[in-house]
Amino acid sequence: MNLCIDQGNSCTKLGIFDNGKLVCDKLYKNFVKEDLSDLFQTYAIRHCILSSVIETDTSLVNYIKSCVKTFIWLDHTVKLPIENLYKTPNTLGNDRLAAAVGANFLYPNRNLLIIDIGSAITYDLVNAQNQYVGGNIAPGVKMRLNALHAYTQRLPLVNIKEHPDYGLIGQDTEEAIANGVMNGIIFEIEGYYKHLCRSHSNVLTFLTGGNLYYFHNRLKITTFVEIFLVLIGLNRILEYNVQD
Amino acid sequence: MNLCIDQGNSCTKLGIFDNGKLVCDKLYKNFVKEDLSDLFQTYAIRHCILSSVIETDTSLVNYIKSCVKTFIWLDHTVKLPIENLYKTPNTLGNDRLAAAVGANFLYPNRNLLIIDIGSAITYDLVNAQNQYVGGNIAPGVKMRLNALHAYTQRLPLVNIKEHPDYGLIGQDTEEAIANGVMNGIIFEIEGYYKHLCRSHSNVLTFLTGGNLYYFHNRLKITTFVEIFLVLIGLNRILEYNVQD
Repeated sequence: MNLCIDQGNSCTKLGIFDNGKLVCDKLYKNFVKEDLSDLFQTYAIRHCILSSVIETDTSLVNYIKSCVKTFIWLDHTVKLPIENLYKTPNTLGNDRLAAAVGANFLYPNRNLLIIDIGSAITYDLVNAQNQYVGGNIAPGVKMRLNALHAYTQRLPLVNIKEHPDYGLIGQDTEEAIANGVMNGIIFEIEGYYKHLCRSHSNVLTFLTGGNLYYFHNRLKITTFVEIFLVLIGLNRILEYNVQD
Repeated sequence: MNLCIDQGNSCTKLGIFDNGKLVCDKLYKNFVKEDLSDLFQTYAIRHCILSSVIETDTSLVNYIKSCVKTFIWLDHTVKLPIENLYKTPNTLGNDRLAAAVGANFLYPNRNLLIIDIGSAITYDLVNAQNQYVGGNIAPGVKMRLNALHAYTQRLPLVNIKEHPDYGLIGQDTEEAIANGVMNGIIFEIEGYYKHLCRSHSNVLTFLTGGNLYYFHNRLKITTFVEIFLVLIGLNRILEYNVQD
């Protein structure tokens, strides 16, 4: 079995794959060594891949290494099943790359827009020639809400869960912020899709990331929702690099 | 003459109007009493209005009061030439209200979308019945750039001035952030316009605020650029409340 670990800015997601099938997934706010030992006892994990966009505890890594046959720390030197056209592959977020690989694995030879709605929102493009072309980064939901409060003197910190039915135009300050942040992201997503469709044929849009559920029913475009896209991509990269 | 002061989150803008005409405008990073004394000596200022979205120095206010015949501190109790439908008028940013009054003064009896691109970006709607309907708030350019750096471990702080020719899709991390922030705001603006046009006829769009120049040439919609919209609105509110 394969263990795939995706350390993001706000949490760590983890998946165990058996012959390409996700058999266990976990999410941790604070990911520590003890979380792993149970898994190693329960599952026959032979290979592991780790992607991180934060500083990673090396003792954790050493522990994993001691438990598996193969350990891959995803960076720009790891061999990939798609071509990477990014000009600075060493600074490309590994989660973005893994999501791109995951989407291309599910829909090869297609133009793909991959939108990961987490702490940040990333928009990445894989073309029909199976090349990772590049992508953009914008602030996520909480980041926008926090910034409006932290970087102004008088705007309150709005909790989006209290505004599930946000509309187009706010009629009080809480609504103005909730609507402003949520509609802004919707218009942003629809804008990328519209612009990419001008230059690329039959673009498929993937949504992933912890906050996708706020948006996918509100978008005026068709999207594939795949919450485990990064993990699927990590497993694909692991399989591509391991001959068992 | 009328002195109109607009204290925002990042700077203070000031305009002196003579019979409806702007004869002097100033911008201060740190606005202090000494900045005013010169103006009071140069211009025959009789009335003053102050709008602030930050804490205001009361000694500054007392000094102004001592120099003018009429002083209006804009808040929700001040009489307005448009009807305010906001549910919580006491929490509506005075600059947003003033910009709405300014746009309605320039184009009365029209549906107006007023976009102020400053520290925050505000989207406000005045309808053809001369009513302020409401609006939204989203983070501004620098706020998004700062947040991406401050709220993540590895994203750099990008200076947008170094990316004047940003494209659709970034090919390195600096580009990804610059493109992500700038395109996001463009799609956001175009999205509001498109959605409002579905429910309102002949919407006129005003752009104002310190960062409008990054955007107005890139938008696919027709806009009126009026950098002094808040000051024009403040002068209108002042005139509406003062019989000279």
